[in-house]
Amino acid sequence: MQRTKALEALKKIGEKVTLKGWVANIRNHGQIIFIELRDWTGIAQVVVDKSIVPVAFETATRLGNEWVVEIHGTVKERETSFINQKLATGKIEIAANDIIVLNKSKTIPFPLDTDGRELDENLRLKYRYLDLRRSRLATILKQKDAYLLSVRNWMNKAGFTEVMTPLLTVSSPEGARDFIVPSRIHKGKFFVLPQAPQQFKQLLMVGGVDRYFQIAPCLRDEDPRADRHAGAFYQIDIEISFPTVDEIFSVCENLIKDTYQVIAPQKKIKQFPFPRITYTEALDKYGSDKPDTRFELLLSDITEVVKNKTEFSIFNTASVVKAIVAPKCGSWSRSEFEKLEKFAKEKGAKGLINLAVTDHGLEGSNIIKYIPDDTQQHLIKAVHAKVGDLILVAAGKITEVNKVLGAVRLKLAELLRLTDNNILAFTWVTDFPFYEINDDGKLDFGHNPFSMPQGGIKAFDIADPLEIKSHQYDLACNGYELLSGSIRNHEPETLVKAFETIGYTREEVLKRFGGMYTAFQYGAPPHGGWAIGVDRLLMILIDEPNIRDVYAFPLNSNGVDVMMNAPSDLYPQQLKDCGIMVIPEDDKDSSP
Amino acid sequence: MQRTKALEALKKIGEKVTLKGWVANIRNHGQIIFIELRDWTGIAQVVVDKSIVPVAFETATRLGNEWVVEIHGTVKERETSFINQKLATGKIEIAANDIIVLNKSKTIPFPLDTDGRELDENLRLKYRYLDLRRSRLATILKQKDAYLLSVRNWMNKAGFTEVMTPLLTVSSPEGARDFIVPSRIHKGKFFVLPQAPQQFKQLLMVGGVDRYFQIAPCLRDEDPRADRHAGAFYQIDIEISFPTVDEIFSVCENLIKDTYQVIAPQKKIKQFPFPRITYTEALDKYGSDKPDTRFELLLSDITEVVKNKTEFSIFNTASVVKAIVAPKCGSWSRSEFEKLEKFAKEKGAKGLINLAVTDHGLEGSNIIKYIPDDTQQHLIKAVHAKVGDLILVAAGKITEVNKVLGAVRLKLAELLRLTDNNILAFTWVTDFPFYEINDDGKLDFGHNPFSMPQGGIKAFDIADPLEIKSHQYDLACNGYELLSGSIRNHEPETLVKAFETIGYTREEVLKRFGGMYTAFQYGAPPHGGWAIGVDRLLMILIDEPNIRDVYAFPLNSNGVDVMMNAPSDLYPQQLKDCGIMVIPEDDKDSSP
Repeated sequence: MQRTKALEALKKIGEKVTLKGWVANIRNHGQIIFIELRDWTGIAQVVVDKSIVPVAFETATRLGNEWVVEIHGTVKERETSFINQKLATGKIEIAANDIIVLNKSKTIPFPLDTDGRELDENLRLKYRYLDLRRSRLATILKQKDAYLLSVRNWMNKAGFTEVMTPLLTVSSPEGARDFIVPSRIHKGKFFVLPQAPQQFKQLLMVGGVDRYFQIAPCLRDEDPRADRHAGAFYQIDIEISFPTVDEIFSVCENLIKDTYQVIAPQKKIKQFPFPRITYTEALDKYGSDKPDTRFELLLSDITEVVKNKTEFSIFNTASVVKAIVAPKCGSWSRSEFEKLEKFAKEKGAKGLINLAVTDHGLEGSNIIKYIPDDTQQHLIKAVHAKVGDLILVAAGKITEVNKVLGAVRLKLAELLRLTDNNILAFTWVTDFPFYEINDDGKLDFGHNPFSMPQGGIKAFDIADPLEIKSHQYDLACNGYELLSGSIRNHEPETLVKAFETIGYTREEVLKRFGGMYTAFQYGAPPHGGWAIGVDRLLMILIDEPNIRDVYAFPLNSNGVDVMMNAPSDLYPQQLKDCGIMVIPEDDKDSSP
Repeated sequence: MQRTKALEALKKIGEKVTLKGWVANIRNHGQIIFIELRDWTGIAQVVVDKSIVPVAFETATRLGNEWVVEIHGTVKERETSFINQKLATGKIEIAANDIIVLNKSKTIPFPLDTDGRELDENLRLKYRYLDLRRSRLATILKQKDAYLLSVRNWMNKAGFTEVMTPLLTVSSPEGARDFIVPSRIHKGKFFVLPQAPQQFKQLLMVGGVDRYFQIAPCLRDEDPRADRHAGAFYQIDIEISFPTVDEIFSVCENLIKDTYQVIAPQKKIKQFPFPRITYTEALDKYGSDKPDTRFELLLSDITEVVKNKTEFSIFNTASVVKAIVAPKCGSWSRSEFEKLEKFAKEKGAKGLINLAVTDHGLEGSNIIKYIPDDTQQHLIKAVHAKVGDLILVAAGKITEVNKVLGAVRLKLAELLRLTDNNILAFTWVTDFPFYEINDDGKLDFGHNPFSMPQGGIKAFDIADPLEIKSHQYDLACNGYELLSGSIRNHEPETLVKAFETIGYTREEVLKRFGGMYTAFQYGAPPHGGWAIGVDRLLMILIDEPNIRDVYAFPLNSNGVDVMMNAPSDLYPQQLKDCGIMVIPEDDKDSSP
């Protein structure tokens, strides 16, 4: 007989059915055994009555959890008092006639009727095929599939062509290490796995493709991090030729607006079209280039209000003094504030000043004695604080102060319960600096090296490269960076200049990006695009904090597949075939 | 003004428009310049009239082919006598008001108004971004996208969930070499790129996924071949739990039936549902396990008809004698036949016997004198030949004879023009042998090692492993192997036994497939599935003989990306970071 899925049985009341699936639970009541049968659609309750079906009952007594069974029976409506509201199939049960064991199972290493978060993750990952039977994870697989299909259909309707770009390619400067693949046929040479399809999508633009997109695999050999899946991740990657900035923005805005409800219908977009602020403004107001704009709590620059207006020397010498107002927190206890100050210090603050607004001025921090009354009033007015509010102040270098108060702002929002996950607050951040000083103290690309500098090649005539702005835009959502995009540089000489400025020679640029440099000489159209991190977007839409659970088979937090045992040793011949050898342990520091 | 695409202009007669694209061609008639402007939607003719728009005309005189331009103008209907039927936009032209040069182009290295097949492929691939502007290749990109989207939507409606499986994984025995990826974090260990998602899709079945699919990237380090894209290729990959064989077949049949018309509406499926024949029958009748069933020309086994019935010793000693009838070819000239015999010898034949059927018996080959009249008549009858037909006979070992006559059959069909590319003749080939003797003379898996042997674990009790049949099925179409699938082995001990039979120790099996072996002990459901080669299917549907042109950016026939220069040298530090070194040239034969 044709198989009926658990959920389909709902529509077959009175009919004879065959269900196949796993024993999720068994309760033996002596004369009656209840089996919870799980399949991909859900769980159905099977009733085995000893007095009616003694043979099936006998089989049922031998079943174990997670055994695979085929159940023949009749769908019956439950009596009203036995309806299980928690179960989609709670109105029915299957009266079994026959039970066939299709496969047995050893005792599983962990329960499957929880969300699994209580378990050691490596144990879950070792038995990921069991973990996936868990309702939470099965739901994620379904949601991811449904979402990406809706994205593809939306893209198609919007005139985008999905093009698959190469997996075996050359290095691209995305700021991470490449995974490398030795060539067997061309020994001593290596492919690299794509960190992003950046160069190929730009070459597609040169090739006349109008609107490209791809759900693109990206592989970066980065050290694993809590919010970064080791190895591979996916992007919704697009590129448009002859674009306007508004067009590039609106594709993203409409894509998200038209698709998110497929898996997150309960959520609301705070503002549409998405608001835009500049990079500078984002740092000024939110202390972050990926602001969480679900709530206000804006930072105020009070440097001019306090500089040389108090006897507190730090206010006079600090390059910037900024404040944030915690509404109605003036009554915080000392320990409440100290907890927040400790948090701020972990983020790099030297200290955090707390000033409670009372009807006769400021109270709290012992520096208040150094602040004259009129300055206190000016300060209260400058930050728009009310009586009962708490003003938090940090002073120092601008980057430090922004980092600290940006983090304090998020912490405050959490404490004040201002972060509603059912609000999607998207914000475009524009006008990023083209260059920045990297961790090694050197001039480096701030974002995508293939972005167009504002002003084109003439921009490089500016004395200080750090002042060059880029046609680069990020999309922040609820405090996460969700998208990065830009209008690209399509001029070969501007490309060379951009790299020369950070120390590349012309020869190096031509060696590394010769394909693109040459391509740009054959009628490259103006173009631009962006990429949305699929993981991040899904995590926000389905409220899933663990990036690895957005993957069916993730690497663990140490970059290892503990189920399949990858990476692993290879046969020496496999290495030899590829013309490589492992550097012996005691030889690692000498040059190969 | 908002951009209008070339094809969209058709609907804007009388309107002012802005077009952006490439100069495909320019004809300067002195007072009027015609520009063929190409964009992603096609070509539109732009007319620049010196007497009306002298400034734009002056700009037009300076344009070169493949320059990028923005044209402002008005859409006009052409006079009837000037309508260009070859152009989708042939009814209209754009009367230019203004021409803006957006970018220049150097002289391109080859013309773009041909199909490109006349060019050296490496030259085309070096400038692939130009090659893609060619109408033929742009069309393939569009067709591939449209087809894969329709596959995805079909799969969704049929209840399949697309799951992306890992790109960094362990070795899987798909019969090809693995691409390997050294681990930087775990030095001395390696990931491999997936040859297919075989193990992961089976683990998804264990994980409770009901119907899995994926447009799956597969990476195999094989020597390049004419019909094999070096490096990566893609599969439409599915797996179903609790399947029936009919279900697995019908998913494929309906998927193809419901989707092929998206890109090949002119084609017809010869028979639906697709006919099924066994592997043995396919070899018997067609001399091939991927029979082209668009035409008959079946092979006949005439061993018993001729054995010891003639004085031709080869007929008496050969293990098999088989024949194929070339209808109405009895009148072939000696040279026509010799050409075919030469072809047969290239395929391994020692000789090919030609017997023309006349109204008084056989004529042709000089062995006829050894064949008595009654045997001649028996032979004619046995192969159902008519007067005027040509009977072609080969004798020898069964595998050789089948290979030769299978090839002769295809050649005949070509000569007789029986291969209509608008017929799609799908045929299931079933009951493959589980094992075969490989090129090294050793017992090896005939197909997928994870298939279920017919008879389950008991099958291994058969004395000769070569007699074990597998629940393995291929789908042939027009002489190509399009799909391979099977009902899988889901029993851990049967898995071990299958590998032990070809010489693995139990320990090796557990080491290499420990994840799967363990998984099968926790309630593995019966399951099965298949994978369709996307490239092959597209090649058939769009009549494209060059597999590389189904890719936007293929590796060349030597496995090299000549545009991006991959594979390439890496910085020594990159290798050192991964803990590997290249084996020095003079050291390659010593063990690493």
